[in-house]
Amino acid sequence: MATAETLSSLEAALREVGAEIDRQFDLLLPVPEDARAPLYEAMRHAAIGGGKRLRPLLVFATGQLFAVDRTCLARVATAIECIHVYSLIHDDLPAMDDDDLRRGKPTVHKAFDEATAILAGDSLHALAFELLADEETHADPRVRVELIADLARSAGPAGMAGGQAMDLEAEGTRFDLATVTRLQALKTGALIACSVEAGAILGRLPAEGRTGLRGYAHDLGLAFQIADDLLDVEGDEAAVGKALRKDGDAGKETFVSLLGQERAREQARMLIDQAVAHLHAFGPEADLLCDIARYVLERDR
Amino acid sequence: MATAETLSSLEAALREVGAEIDRQFDLLLPVPEDARAPLYEAMRHAAIGGGKRLRPLLVFATGQLFAVDRTCLARVATAIECIHVYSLIHDDLPAMDDDDLRRGKPTVHKAFDEATAILAGDSLHALAFELLADEETHADPRVRVELIADLARSAGPAGMAGGQAMDLEAEGTRFDLATVTRLQALKTGALIACSVEAGAILGRLPAEGRTGLRGYAHDLGLAFQIADDLLDVEGDEAAVGKALRKDGDAGKETFVSLLGQERAREQARMLIDQAVAHLHAFGPEADLLCDIARYVLERDR
Repeated sequence: MATAETLSSLEAALREVGAEIDRQFDLLLPVPEDARAPLYEAMRHAAIGGGKRLRPLLVFATGQLFAVDRTCLARVATAIECIHVYSLIHDDLPAMDDDDLRRGKPTVHKAFDEATAILAGDSLHALAFELLADEETHADPRVRVELIADLARSAGPAGMAGGQAMDLEAEGTRFDLATVTRLQALKTGALIACSVEAGAILGRLPAEGRTGLRGYAHDLGLAFQIADDLLDVEGDEAAVGKALRKDGDAGKETFVSLLGQERAREQARMLIDQAVAHLHAFGPEADLLCDIARYVLERDR
Repeated sequence: MATAETLSSLEAALREVGAEIDRQFDLLLPVPEDARAPLYEAMRHAAIGGGKRLRPLLVFATGQLFAVDRTCLARVATAIECIHVYSLIHDDLPAMDDDDLRRGKPTVHKAFDEATAILAGDSLHALAFELLADEETHADPRVRVELIADLARSAGPAGMAGGQAMDLEAEGTRFDLATVTRLQALKTGALIACSVEAGAILGRLPAEGRTGLRGYAHDLGLAFQIADDLLDVEGDEAAVGKALRKDGDAGKETFVSLLGQERAREQARMLIDQAVAHLHAFGPEADLLCDIARYVLERDR
C-alpha cells in the first residue's frame, strides 16, 4: 500500500517532471509568424500543461538508476511524450473515440478543427524522431539510433497503433481475456515499456541486464490499464478530466467487464507487487520506480 | 525537351523501382492473423501497386551517382515512400481534402473506414523510422541517424506537415506568389529534397559537396508542383487517377491561378533547365536525374 509520504514525494516528482516537460515543449514549439501558426498553437494546446506525465517520469526514474544526465533524460522523455500526445489527439477524433474533453480541456479538434488536429498529431509524431535524432540529445549516434528503433517499433503497427487497431475491432467482437491483455499490451503497454527501456538504453545497460526492468514495465503497463478500466467505471469525470464509461456503452470488453471490479483490483495489486519484486536487485535506488508502480493503482485520474 | 528515347528509358527505371518498392512493402507488411488484420490490409491497399514512385526513384538515381548498394537504397527509398503514402492517406480524409479516389483506387477511408485510415497513416509514419533505424538499412549508425534527422525534419511542422497546415489556411486567404511558393516548398518540396539528400547521405558526400544536388532538388520540387497545378487544370481524371480541379473550386491560389497557364508552364521549364544545370559537375553519370527533371514536366499523371 502507498503511504501518504511516498505519495507526496511521488507527487513532487510528477510535478517536477511535468514542469520540465512543459518547459521543453514551450521551447520546441514557438509559434511562427506565418500560416502555420494555428498548427503550432494546436500542438501547444495538446502538449503543454496537462497530463500525468507518467511516461516522462518513467524515463527519469529509470535513467536516474544509472546516473544519466538530466538534460538528456528531459529530451528523450519529451520525445516519448510527443508520441503519447499525438496518439491522444488522433484517438479523440470523431472517427475514433469522438471525445470532446481531454485533461479537462476541449480536445484539439474541438478547440481548433479536425484537419488541424490530424496535422498536429502528425507533426508531434515526426517531432519525436527529430528530437531523438538530434545530437544534442545524446553524443553517441548508436544510442540515438537504438532509442529511435525502440520508439518507432513501440509506436507502430506492432505496438501502440496496432493496439488501437485491435481496439477498433473490439466493438463488434467479444474479446476474451487473453485478447484484451494482448490488445492492452500493445495499446498502452508498448509505450510504457519503451519509457523504461529508454532509461536503460541511455544508462548503457546491456540488453541482457534489462530483464528485471522489462518485467517491471510489463507488469506496470498491465496494472496501469486495469486501473484505467476501474477508473472508467468508478471514477469522477471532473477529476479524470475526460468522458468516462464509454467502453461499456460501446459494448467493448475490458478487464473489469471480464473479471468484475473486485477480481480486477486484486489482479492489479498482484501485478504491482510483481512489478516491484522485479526491481529487487536495484535496492533502494529503485524506490521511485516502486512508488510509481504503487501510485498507478491509487491514482484518481 | 524530353525525347521518346529518354522517356522510355526513364519509364523503364520508374517501372523497375516501382516493382522493387512493391516488393519491399509486400515483405514488410504481412497480414497478421489477429484483430490487426484490417490495419495491415489498409496499409497494403495504400502502399502497394500504385503511384509514380518519384521519391524512391530520386533516392536510387542520386545513390547511383555514388555507387551506393541497391539493397540499402531500396530500404531508404521505401522509408521515404512510407511517409509519402501516409501523407496521402491523411490528406484524403473527409476532414482534409475529402477525396474518394487516389491512384485510380478508392481512398483508404472509402475502402475501409476513417478510423482505420487514420491508424494506417500513423502506422506507416512510424514504420518509416523503424526501417531507417534498423541496422540492415545501413551498417553505420551515424548514417542511419543522419537519414532519420533529415526525414523527420522534412515530414514535420517545419516541412511537409507545416506545408499542409498552410494549405488549410489557403482556402480563406488570398496567398501571394511568395507565400504559395513557400507553402509548396514545404508541402511537396521538403520530401522531394529529402529523397535526393538521402542518396547523398548514403553516398557519404560531405555536406559542403551537396550544394548542386540541393539546388537540383529545390528547383525540381517547385517545377513538380507547377506541373501538378497545370495537370489539375488541364489533366484527364482517369489518367491522373484522382479528382481534379478542386483547388479552383475551393478558391485556393495556385501557381496557375496566380501566373496563368502559359507563364506557369514557362516558369516550370525554366526551373527544369536550372535543375539540370545544377548537375553539370556530375557529367553523364547524372543523366537519370536529368531525365527525371524533364519527365516531371511531360508527365500526364
